[in-house]
Amino acid sequence: MRDAYHEELNALTARLLEMCRFVRSAMSRGTTALLGADLALAESVIADDAEIDRRYAEVDSSIQLLLATQQPVAVDLRTVITALRISADLERMGDHAERIAKIARMRHPEPAVPAEVRDTIAEMGAIAEDLISKTASVIESRDVDLARRLVKEDDEMDRLHRRLFRVLLSADWPHGVEAAIDVTLIGRYYERYADHAVRIAQDVIYLATGDRDADGAG
Amino acid sequence: MRDAYHEELNALTARLLEMCRFVRSAMSRGTTALLGADLALAESVIADDAEIDRRYAEVDSSIQLLLATQQPVAVDLRTVITALRISADLERMGDHAERIAKIARMRHPEPAVPAEVRDTIAEMGAIAEDLISKTASVIESRDVDLARRLVKEDDEMDRLHRRLFRVLLSADWPHGVEAAIDVTLIGRYYERYADHAVRIAQDVIYLATGDRDADGAG
Repeated sequence: MRDAYHEELNALTARLLEMCRFVRSAMSRGTTALLGADLALAESVIADDAEIDRRYAEVDSSIQLLLATQQPVAVDLRTVITALRISADLERMGDHAERIAKIARMRHPEPAVPAEVRDTIAEMGAIAEDLISKTASVIESRDVDLARRLVKEDDEMDRLHRRLFRVLLSADWPHGVEAAIDVTLIGRYYERYADHAVRIAQDVIYLATGDRDADGAG
Repeated sequence: MRDAYHEELNALTARLLEMCRFVRSAMSRGTTALLGADLALAESVIADDAEIDRRYAEVDSSIQLLLATQQPVAVDLRTVITALRISADLERMGDHAERIAKIARMRHPEPAVPAEVRDTIAEMGAIAEDLISKTASVIESRDVDLARRLVKEDDEMDRLHRRLFRVLLSADWPHGVEAAIDVTLIGRYYERYADHAVRIAQDVIYLATGDRDADGAG
């Protein structure tokens, strides 16, 4: 039974890593579609979100099966429950990529991102991609140090998010309210996406150390 | 063992209902603080969020204990897993109430909500309170019809959310970008809060009928 259990656990980790690949691809294309006002690319991100949702539902089912058939206890049980939480966070990260693509689609053929904030959004997109790569490594390795570095990297996303608002609120913002609303929501989607990556890292830290960060909930 | 299991399951439901009461109180006070620019009330919502987080962690622990000691299968297992998801959604609903209170605090002594959108926000607040009351009833009764009515009520929140944007984007919006950003975020917090209530209702429907809505994930 222990062998069957560990086999199923490995299969579960493989499914989570596959979700990470889908999320990474969605966010990467979402950012490109947003900055390039690329309608076809935006549509592909929106269409592919159903694929992430389907994989999330599969992970959910496989976890219920694993709990029912293997009835894990102690650290094994915590590992499985953590996988359940991680899959939910990954599914939400995919949703944020989809929301970014939807803004690109809504404004097409105009770009949704004015020149003044283009570099900041591009930087947020680069960090988003790096975060999901690190998230996958953390899920695979359960490396606490790497998880802590991921949590730290979120500070950089927060810094960019604040910079975005400074530009929006500067006296010479020339684009009016509509563009400000778009940029506010875009900024928030990247920030929330990063928060989910942080939650995953904190869950892995908790699993390894029993140390639950005071403010893990986002 | 079955008796012990059902006793623990009842205790778990009671914990979820208590979380609902906390969320309802937080959202009610959050809306009042926002509309009345009431700093003390906003601070109380922000301080009390730790209480919701603590209860969420307790539910989490009690579910892990229940899984480990009772090792439920089939519908019992799905019930417990659903409770885990519900508690996570309730915790996020509390976070949205806190975010609304934080905007009230940030703008104090000015009101964060201009007169033009006051009524809309007040209506969103009223629906938010009604949704958490219905959420508690759905958790307690597992009544599928009530859960479906809750899902339906979310349409009303979406309608108000669209109305908010129409006002923001009208040619005669006199308040500039800063107020538009505040109102954009406030609107989004109410809408996301409602989405979590919908997820809970959909989880209960799924538990009762096995019928998973195509777009349950938010």
